[in-house]
This record gives sequence, C-alpha cells and structure tokens, in this order.
Amino acid sequence: MSKPTLTVGLIGYQFMGKAHSNAYRQVNRFFDLPLQVRMKTLCGRNEAAVKAAADGLGWEGYETDWRRVVNDPEIDVVDVSTPGSSHCEIVCAAAAAGKIVFCEKPIGNTLEEAQRMRDAVKQSGRPSAVFHNYRKAPAVALAKKMIAEGRLGTLYHMRAVYLQDWIADPEFPLVWRLQKETAGSGAHGDINSHIIDLGRHLVGGFKEVCGTLHTFITKRPLAGAIDDKLGAQASSETGDVTVDDAAMFLARFENGALGTFEASRFAVGRKNYNRFEINGSKGSLVFNLERMNELEYYNNDDPSETHGFRMIQATQADHPYAGHYWPVGHIIGYEHTFVNLVADAVSAIASGKDPSPNMEDGYQNQRVLDAVERSHAARTWLAV
Amino acid sequence: MSKPTLTVGLIGYQFMGKAHSNAYRQVNRFFDLPLQVRMKTLCGRNEAAVKAAADGLGWEGYETDWRRVVNDPEIDVVDVSTPGSSHCEIVCAAAAAGKIVFCEKPIGNTLEEAQRMRDAVKQSGRPSAVFHNYRKAPAVALAKKMIAEGRLGTLYHMRAVYLQDWIADPEFPLVWRLQKETAGSGAHGDINSHIIDLGRHLVGGFKEVCGTLHTFITKRPLAGAIDDKLGAQASSETGDVTVDDAAMFLARFENGALGTFEASRFAVGRKNYNRFEINGSKGSLVFNLERMNELEYYNNDDPSETHGFRMIQATQADHPYAGHYWPVGHIIGYEHTFVNLVADAVSAIASGKDPSPNMEDGYQNQRVLDAVERSHAARTWLAV
Amino acid sequence: MSKPTLTVGLIGYQFMGKAHSNAYRQVNRFFDLPLQVRMKTLCGRNEAAVKAAADGLGWEGYETDWRRVVNDPEIDVVDVSTPGSSHCEIVCAAAAAGKIVFCEKPIGNTLEEAQRMRDAVKQSGRPSAVFHNYRKAPAVALAKKMIAEGRLGTLYHMRAVYLQDWIADPEFPLVWRLQKETAGSGAHGDINSHIIDLGRHLVGGFKEVCGTLHTFITKRPLAGAIDDKLGAQASSETGDVTVDDAAMFLARFENGALGTFEASRFAVGRKNYNRFEINGSKGSLVFNLERMNELEYYNNDDPSETHGFRMIQATQADHPYAGHYWPVGHIIGYEHTFVNLVADAVSAIASGKDPSPNMEDGYQNQRVLDAVERSHAARTWLAV
Amino acid sequence: MSKPTLTVGLIGYQFMGKAHSNAYRQVNRFFDLPLQVRMKTLCGRNEAAVKAAADGLGWEGYETDWRRVVNDPEIDVVDVSTPGSSHCEIVCAAAAAGKIVFCEKPIGNTLEEAQRMRDAVKQSGRPSAVFHNYRKAPAVALAKKMIAEGRLGTLYHMRAVYLQDWIADPEFPLVWRLQKETAGSGAHGDINSHIIDLGRHLVGGFKEVCGTLHTFITKRPLAGAIDDKLGAQASSETGDVTVDDAAMFLARFENGALGTFEASRFAVGRKNYNRFEINGSKGSLVFNLERMNELEYYNNDDPSETHGFRMIQATQADHPYAGHYWPVGHIIGYEHTFVNLVADAVSAIASGKDPSPNMEDGYQNQRVLDAVERSHAARTWLAV
Repeated sequence: MSKPTLTVGLIGYQFMGKAHSNAYRQVNRFFDLPLQVRMKTLCGRNEAAVKAAADGLGWEGYETDWRRVVNDPEIDVVDVSTPGSSHCEIVCAAAAAGKIVFCEKPIGNTLEEAQRMRDAVKQSGRPSAVFHNYRKAPAVALAKKMIAEGRLGTLYHMRAVYLQDWIADPEFPLVWRLQKETAGSGAHGDINSHIIDLGRHLVGGFKEVCGTLHTFITKRPLAGAIDDKLGAQASSETGDVTVDDAAMFLARFENGALGTFEASRFAVGRKNYNRFEINGSKGSLVFNLERMNELEYYNNDDPSETHGFRMIQATQADHPYAGHYWPVGHIIGYEHTFVNLVADAVSAIASGKDPSPNMEDGYQNQRVLDAVERSHAARTWLAV
Repeated sequence: MSKPTLTVGLIGYQFMGKAHSNAYRQVNRFFDLPLQVRMKTLCGRNEAAVKAAADGLGWEGYETDWRRVVNDPEIDVVDVSTPGSSHCEIVCAAAAAGKIVFCEKPIGNTLEEAQRMRDAVKQSGRPSAVFHNYRKAPAVALAKKMIAEGRLGTLYHMRAVYLQDWIADPEFPLVWRLQKETAGSGAHGDINSHIIDLGRHLVGGFKEVCGTLHTFITKRPLAGAIDDKLGAQASSETGDVTVDDAAMFLARFENGALGTFEASRFAVGRKNYNRFEINGSKGSLVFNLERMNELEYYNNDDPSETHGFRMIQATQADHPYAGHYWPVGHIIGYEHTFVNLVADAVSAIASGKDPSPNMEDGYQNQRVLDAVERSHAARTWLAV
Repeated sequence: MSKPTLTVGLIGYQFMGKAHSNAYRQVNRFFDLPLQVRMKTLCGRNEAAVKAAADGLGWEGYETDWRRVVNDPEIDVVDVSTPGSSHCEIVCAAAAAGKIVFCEKPIGNTLEEAQRMRDAVKQSGRPSAVFHNYRKAPAVALAKKMIAEGRLGTLYHMRAVYLQDWIADPEFPLVWRLQKETAGSGAHGDINSHIIDLGRHLVGGFKEVCGTLHTFITKRPLAGAIDDKLGAQASSETGDVTVDDAAMFLARFENGALGTFEASRFAVGRKNYNRFEINGSKGSLVFNLERMNELEYYNNDDPSETHGFRMIQATQADHPYAGHYWPVGHIIGYEHTFVNLVADAVSAIASGKDPSPNMEDGYQNQRVLDAVERSHAARTWLAV
Repeated sequence: MSKPTLTVGLIGYQFMGKAHSNAYRQVNRFFDLPLQVRMKTLCGRNEAAVKAAADGLGWEGYETDWRRVVNDPEIDVVDVSTPGSSHCEIVCAAAAAGKIVFCEKPIGNTLEEAQRMRDAVKQSGRPSAVFHNYRKAPAVALAKKMIAEGRLGTLYHMRAVYLQDWIADPEFPLVWRLQKETAGSGAHGDINSHIIDLGRHLVGGFKEVCGTLHTFITKRPLAGAIDDKLGAQASSETGDVTVDDAAMFLARFENGALGTFEASRFAVGRKNYNRFEINGSKGSLVFNLERMNELEYYNNDDPSETHGFRMIQATQADHPYAGHYWPVGHIIGYEHTFVNLVADAVSAIASGKDPSPNMEDGYQNQRVLDAVERSHAARTWLAV
C-alpha cells in the first residue's frame, strides 16, 4: 500500500542544493502527495565534499560525474542546481535521456542556451520545473489568486525591486557570481530574474523594456577556491568584475500596465529586499520577501471612511499552502517556498500535467533578461 | 456683518501656553465658526517674559496678576495653563466671576481640588473645557465615531500606554514636574491622565482599578529657575523626587471590558508614544500619537481570506476635522489637536452647549487617578 | 564512525507532536551535533491515528500505551506533548524509569503537579527540557545576549502581551483547551506562560504580582471528539467554559524592574501576537513573534541626532542559530524555534549539562502562574 | 523697536494660496526672524471669492488684477501660486518691476518659459524662491545634512516615487490639472517635479535620463468651473485628457549614482506617497512624506550584530527646524514645510543672500522634466 516513488538525482550541493534537498526531504511530511520522493543521488565534483553533503542532507548516495546521474535508469528527476554555466549541457543531456528536468533559475547564461534547453525539454515530452520559488510563498500565491479573480481590476502599475548589499564592500572578493563566464550576469540574472518572473506571473507578458546595467566596483580581490557567496575569502591580487552590480529597467506589459524593475547588490542595508507593489483599478497589493508571510492589500471597494492598506497574514488555513503547516500566525520561512514548489511539481507530475513554472517559463524569463541587456547596449526601448 | 467675538485671557505661557495660543490664533482660519476668537490678554508673573510671549504669540496685551484677567469684564474665557498647583484657586475665582473656564489637564493636583473646581464651575452655570486634546486627533475622533456606531461590537479589551524617556537620565534636574507640591504627581497625572481620558471617552466609565506607582530615581540635581521640561539646567546639589516616574494599572470598565494602562518617563527610546489598542467582538483599533494621522482597523466582517489590520490615513475630507485642513495624505500635527479642541469648544459655546471634554470630564478623570493612587497604597483593587 | 544516537519516544501527536517531530527530524540536518537523534516511537491512544501520524511524521514505530514507551530500554528521551492533565503521571513515571524527560509547557495543570514533576526529575538525576521554544528564536536569543552583556543597562520595564483571537467567536465549541480538568487554565497557562518564561529569561525572577483572569463567554457549544484547537466542530448543546479567556497582571521583578503581562484569546485581529518591549537605562528592545526574525533595538548611546529604534534582521551568520540555516535576509519560521531548542538540548545532554529551559524552569514558571491565580482570588498583590 | 517688514502680495488663493498664506501668517510666530512678514494683498480674478479668501486667510486687502500687485510700491515680494500657464507672464512682469519673486513649482509649463523666468529674475538682480517645500521637512533637511557630512559615503542609488490616486476613478472630471494648456503636464510636472528636486538637492545634478509618460484614461467628463483638484464636479460631456497620468524614468547622476523615478496618479491606495531611498557606501536613508516626521537610517558602521534601519523621529530640538515647534515626539504637519521654507527665504533675504531653492533651481528642475519628455518621444536615453 506504499506510494509510488519519484526518484531524484540532484546536481549541485551548495546554497541551492541545500534548499532543494530540504524540500525533497520535507515535502511528503507536510503534503499528502500521490508520489513519495526518493532522494537517491547527490552529485558534485569534489568527492569528499559531496559525500559529506549527501550524508548531511539526507541522500542515499552520491556521484562525482553528473553523467552517471543522467544515465541512472532509476532516477526520474534530474535537478540541476549548479552555477549557470553548466546548466545547458546537463539539462540537454538529461532531457535527451528522457528525464524530468528540474532546474535552478536563470536557466541559462544566454538566451541561446535557454532556448536550447527549452527546446530539448519540449522535444523530450517530459515535464519540467524551474525554481522561481517566490511564486510559492503563500502571500504571493494569494496575490496571484486575487489578481486572477479580478479583484485588482485593470492593472496599471507594477514596481518591483530586489535589493541586497552583500558585495557593497569593495574588498569582497571576486567569487564566481561576479564572473560572466560562470554566472552569465550579476544582479540581473541572479535577482532581477526573480522579479521578472513575478511580473510575468502576476501581471502578464512583457511587451517592451528599456534598461541599463551598471558595475560600481570594477576590480576586486581574487578569491580562492570558492563555490558560493557564503564562503568567500579575500586575497591580495585583483581581477575584473565582469558582471553588473545593479540592473534597472522600465517596462510596458502586453496588457498595458507599466513596470519599473530594479535589482542591486549595492543597496546598503537591504539584505533580501524583494518587494513589489501592484496597483490596479480596484485595489493594490504589496509584498516584501523579508516579511514573506504578509501581504498588504488595499481594496478600493472598502467604504471611503475606512480605506487603507491592510496587512494580511497569509498564514491561515484558507490561504495557499499555509494549511499544510501551522496554525494561523505561526509563520513559515524561506525554505518552505521550495517545499511548496516541489509539492506543486510532484502533484502536477502525478497527474500528467506540466509543473508551473517550467522550462518554458524559464525561457520566457530569459527573453526579458536578454531584451534588457540589449536595451542597455542600444540605449533605447526594445520589444521583448 | 462681522462675527461676535469670544474674548480670551490665558494664564500661563510655557509649553501649553504656546499650544493654546496657536490654537486661538489659527482656529478661525481653518474653521468657519459663529464666534471670532479675540486674543486679549496673556498672563504670567515675570513681566519681561510675559510681554515678550504676548508679542510673540499674538496677544493684544499682557498682565502679571491673574486676578486682573479674571476680573476683566471684556474677557469671556479664562484659560488656565499654569502648573497644577495653581489651577484650583484661579479656576474657582474665574468661575465665581462668571467666566467660561478652560483648563489644562489634570485639572487639579488632588481629587479634593478637582471636586472643588468642578463644583465651582457647575455652580457658575457657565460652559467649560478641559484640554484632553488627544480626543481631537482626527484618527481618535474616527475611532470614537466607529465605536459609537457599534462597529467594534462588544468591547473586550483596551490596552494603553503613554511612554516617554525625557527624565531617564539620572542627571536630569529636579524640575517642577518632579515635585509633588507643584505637579501633584509625575507620569501619572501628566500622561496617565491622557490615556485615562481616552479610556473614558472611547470605552466608557471605569469600574475598578488596581495599580502601582514607582520612582526609579529618587534624588536628582536641583534645577535653577525652571518653568518647563525643555529649559532645565543641572546643578550640583540634589533634592528628592517626590512624584512617580512610572505608573501602571489594571482596570475593569463598567461595560465589562478589561484594561491595562501604563505611563512612564523611563521608557528609553519612546518619545511621545501614546498608543492604545481596543479589541471588540467585531473588530479592533490601534492608535499611536507619534503617527497620529493613522488609525489601524481590523474589521472582523471582512472576508476571512483578506482579514488584516488596515492602516487608515485619517486625512480624508470625510474624516473628522481633516476636511478643514489639507487634501488627503497631507498630514496635520500635534498643534492641530488644540485647534480642533478649541473649534469644538467655540461651536459648543455658540450654541449654548457645554464643550466636551469639560470640567466634569476633568473631575471624572481625577477620580480614576485618585483611585489608582489609593490602590497603590492599599495594594489591592479599589472601586473608582 | 557513525555518531552515538539519542533515541526518542514522543507521547502525543497533535499540534505539538507535529512540531516536536519536525524538530527531531530536522535537527541533525542543520546542526552538527555530537548525537544523532533517532525517532523510535510515537505514542497515542487511537491506534489508526497514531499509526498514520508515525508514518507521516517520520517515526519508526508507534505505541498506544505510554507505559511501553517509558519502559522501553532503548529509549533515552521521553517527550510528553499531551494535554496538561496527563503530564504529571507520565513525567513522574518516565523520571522514575530513569529517562531524560522533555515536556511541553506549562508542565502541569497545578503548582502541586509541577512541583511533583520537578522533584521527580531532580531525584532521577537526569537532564530535562521544557518547550518554552520562543527563547530559541534568533531574535530572542540575541535579546538575551544583549541584556546579558549589559547593553540595556539597568532594566526598568517589561511589557509583554500574547494576543490571539481564535475563540472570540461565541460559537467556537468547548474544546479541551477550554476545560479546566484537561487544560488547567485558558489563556493563562497556554500563552501567559510563554511570556512569563520570556520575562524570567530576559529580565529575571518575579518578586510579586497582582493580576486578574476573566471569562467573557461562559457557555459554548459542546464539541465532538476533538483533540486540538484546529479540528473543532460545533454541536447544539452547550457546556460551561471553565478556564479564563484572558489573564493580565502587573509585576515587580526581583531586580526592581516593573512588568505588565496580558494574555488573551479575545484580541480580535491578533493571531499570534506575542510581543514584548524591554526598557533599560541604556536602551530598549522590542520583539513580535509574528515578525519573529526581527528585533527592534534602541541604543541610547547612539548620537542624539540619529537616535531611533533600529530593525535588526536576526538572520545573519553572527546571530544566534541563524548561521545554521540560510543567508542573511532569508527568514526562518515558527518550527525552527523547536529545532533550535532540540539542538541546544542535545548539545547539553551530550556534554553532561542540563538543557535550558528545563523542568526547574517549568516549575518556576508555574509558581508565577499560580501566584497570579491566587492574586486574582485575593484581589491583591502577592509574593511569587 | 519693531522689526522692518517684508510686504507680500500673493497671486492665487486655492490650495497653494491657502498653504502659502498660512506660512506667512505663522512664520514669525515660530521663528525669530529679522523681518516681519506683512500680508498686504491677495489677488484673484473672482472678486467675491478673493475678498472672502483674503479675510479668511488673514490678508489686509485684495486685488483682482495681478498687475496692481506687481506695481504696488509697498509690496516687496510677489508670490505666484496660480496654475502654471500664467506663471511666466506674472513672474517676468514682477521681476521687471524689481520685485522679489516667489513662485510655485514647476515654475513653467515649458522649458522655454522656465528659462525666460529664470533670466528675468536673474536680470532683476533680486532674490527669488521656489516652493519645492519638501526640502524643508525636518527629516529631509536632516537627510541633506547627513549626506553633506559624508555620512552616506559614495552615493550609489536613489529610488523615488510620488504616488497618488485621486484621478484613478475614470469618472473624475477633466479639471484644469488634466489639461495641457493650463497645467503643462500631469503627474510629471505636478509631482515628478518634487522628487526630481529632491534628487537634485540630495544626490546632485542629473546627467542623463530615459523615461516615458502614459495616460491611462484618455477621455473624462467635462468639469464645471473648477479651480482645484478638491472642488471638481462631473458632467455628462467628455473631453480629452491632454496630460500624463503617470511618468517614470531612469537616471544617471553626474556623480555616478543611478536613479529611478516614478510619479503616478493611478496608484490606487496611495494618497501622498512621496517616498525616496538613497543608498551609499556608508549607509542608506528612507523618507516617506506620509510619515514626514520620520527618517529611516542604516549606518553601515554600526556593529554587524546590531545592524538595522533605525527610525529617527526628526522632532528633536537638535533636528533642523524642529526646535522651533514642539517637544520631541510632538509631530508637525504638511503645512510646516511651507513655514520652514518661508523662514529660510526671509532669513536669506534679510542677509542679502538668495534663498534656496530659487528660480535657478526651478529652471534646473524644468530641464530634467523637459529631458524626460523628450526622451519619451525619442524612446531613448538623453542628456539633461
């Protein structure tokens, strides 16, 4: 009477690998799903490190060559959580091997890569998922539901920022995320891609954009062998920063709404300030990831005398996802956005549907990223 | 075709004198009232100071003996804004002279004084007003309206604090407000009296209380000649602090609601934090004087999914008082609570009604203050 | 080379059982501990339900008689998470059997029970832990550290509230938490006990208290077979509510600080509003469980011009616990307070120390609860 | 021994006329200035209305032809507060007559007009002032001081929005502010001009911009005879909206900082949300006009453990302007920004300096407005 399993192999075990592993480990604990996730293989190039990570994160075993994961007949899902530069090869191979592909965002370092990946997955006919996890915060899912129900009316504005400050110190070293060949871009691909996804998800398709990218600190100390933003060490030599520190753009959505988007790693004091505000003819919504259990809502149909932004705690049993966790007012955290995303993906896969967001979403996201980069070069508005 | 005048003489020209003067000066500019306020006489004991103050604050003339104000046949209103120890004599004389009495709060330093003042005014048959000005913030007036309309249902709780920190430094000198003979009490009469008034106004009569008063710093440097909290200077000698630094009490209201009240001058970081929250069966309200243009409101009848405290900006033309000032979102300040109070008082006087709050409110307020002080001594609950 | 295990048996599988199970399951994933937690047995009276719960929550097996858990020689820790009425018998038996006892708060329904449990554990010579989990929120642990370092100076005030509204609807049924024989008390034991613990932890021992308890709705529809606040169903018959809906008290701490405490289930709009403010001579702190990743701090030593409450996001690697989870700004949730508590307890046990908080803390907490109840009856201040 | 006077004639008596009048009336009450403001003449075309306004607002007399004000030898200052379309003629005439010119913002409806006005004032050799009043909020003045002292270090970002919703209703009529011939532009000139001024004031000169303007509702009911946004009445006929509803642009400042600016009258729920955030290498500042007494400040030099945005109440005696009003925590309002601006202007004039901001600032502001409009047409970045 035990459930059928969905067997996962995960490539990459740093920050995202830890978050994905936790999601696989916890998802069947909080959600009653038709499939049981089996955490078979964790994969990384450093054997000692990946072995320790596999133990610590709850994987049955490990591999040091991603090809063995892709070719493992027991594995249903290949999840790619490595730096962007290796996504394309792995994803295309996994798709060719008939695997379900899960992939971190942004899916590629270039639009061309993203298109190849999207096409490979499409050709495979298998489902896919992309980790635009912020869609899955209960407050964001509630926002989506309210907009879909027409409760904001005609949408006029979205203003979104994703602000951090972890590299504002000029002595912060030249980690892989600051190098174009590994990361593709800087704040733009890392965090602008998140708010672009929220824009697509909540407001709709982008019609045209006009933007600019900027690097405030162009030389930094070389780092040692560094895999992630958390473990960086400074050295005395310097190298060129080849990605943007900040990226901002104006947008027109297909439905006529206007947008402003800004991502920066130089907003001193802002740690993970992914905030959006959407204004429609019937109301407005505000979200801030640092207070991710809350959604502010202004209902223009409230009586004039008591109009005001109300602070909804999206922790009630009748809010998306929230009923799977704790009673009202007992908040969940960042990691649960991954749990929720995996829960949705597993449900979709079990019922033969494609998860959302999927590789098509990842590709559409990259089209916006790319248009902004081209707009920066051309100094003009460009169609997406 | 000019309006009849209401001629005022004001005793006292420090902090409260400045605030009252501004209210008299501005009230006919913002409110279309049946009477024109005439600022005839400002009174204080130091001739040079009161002359300068009269000029600066817009009074026609000045006096150094309050008896000349009380006996001036042109003067309709005697406004008493001196330290508490002199209220009773002046108020009783003014009432005996048939004047309309306006008085700062708390009206007396003891319940016995308060009762004498109340009785004197009652006997005079003339209107009166007491400067519990926070009733007149638009957000508080809106709260009053909402409660009166039943929009909070059965009231369960009021929790009110009035927190300041201006004497938390042990080197702050022994100004008149820290001496029982001039001030009557400390935080209790100065600021607890404000939140007690809000309790009476918004929730209803107090049935019983249990409280305590406390003095954290019992000796302080002597001050020089000091009239107000702002102008204090330290000296090397010390004297006894004879009033409370903090006062707190539990309460049961006549309608069954429970209350907690706390006033302190030792809440480091709190400047003028007069905050209350009222919970009823149908909703809740929160007010904070430091953001006095805002009222938080939770409507229990909102759909469950979008329940939340909403932040009402009480600056709309359909909010109390707000239409007399600026367009929505353009806030007013502390001083306007006095303007609004005077506007209400002038309107009431013109139509033969007693202003609200008046000396009876001042007396009822003092009954609560007194019951808390007696409860402190008796260490038990006492009926008010 | 595998770690020694700490084998746990858990009695109770409702809300708290789910939270404890998650903590046991996750603790070794996020903390590098000397012991590996083994989740051996979940225990409950309804076999079908406990079996399903054991599967869902990750236990190896289940029992329907708690005595079998207490007597299982493999089990090191007996964790008691049942309603309060059954704590005493189980805890005393587990202690007598030489087990390490973990227990939900409040440990007993009466002071006499609490004392018996405390004594039994003491006599056993084994470590113990009590789930006053809010101590373990990073922001609260940071507050504790700052106070211990003297950064608040002399403590003057603590004001704490724990406000909820889940039974404000008079039609909410008479669940076990509203009946004295199972729950002992209402808001008082359930949530006042939490803020009392925070008071003891952060400010120090209680010297005397004066309080009152109140029941707003004295009759409610009978519930069916109900185990927890989330699963209640109304019926047509009514029964007496025999616990308090709200409890509030004033306090003097042994160090001279003053306190106000209020717990209510009738604060409409408040879901899990466990908020405290502590004022000292050098600064102040504010915490609110609904935004549990944040700590507000006013530093009186800041330059006057830029004085202000600052909002610390207690999510940095240099904040307590936070470094075990995610990068700065990526918040954790309610469940992690349990993970942190278990991590601390496992560390303490491994190094031969008694965890904190433990059964002595549970007992001291109950002494305050009891003093408030007696003060309510006596209508006067009482020593704790 | 009375002070020399500065005699003012004010053209226009609607919203801005009321705010300016209040400032003239109050300025010598709160500030000890070398000149006494004399409110001689209020001017408007409708005799009955201007007469009533002059009485109500405290002017000695009135005129219906602005030329009589400009040619009145007693008048020192001509203040132009009419709709933008009439500014240029009046200002140039006043300057030609040797008057000190005060002018509402934006000074002109076109850059050409602004230049003519600026040149006329320059040629006159007399001082001037422009009512970019938000510079004069204590919190903004504190921000200016902190930036000038280098406390934010190198400036990286400014993001500014000015959001309102007063015309979001499609039935709101076609008032003068929605017509290009009277208002010049919509949200752009009305409110973008305010945040552009704050950008110039706080960050520095604009180097290049790229922006767009948009009109969501292009036809509206005709209004009757309407002078201001507050008094509009709908009719059955419609007319074309010829100004923008929203305007947004990206910017590069001369000092290398990046900026985003957005103004909208379609941000439903936002009433007067003039908010900016400035990030520098040493810290950040946040201001919101709706809470105009507060300034948020992140000091990157704080110890890491207690980093956080602190909420400064800019109401202390050591904050700009605040010492002229009330004790700390007793807030001021919108109208006081005008009082402060006039106080500064009077002081400057008395000491032979040009006030700040003045007509040169007004002109520079218009250059930015103009560059954004041209950028909109050209769909590209343009130098300012």
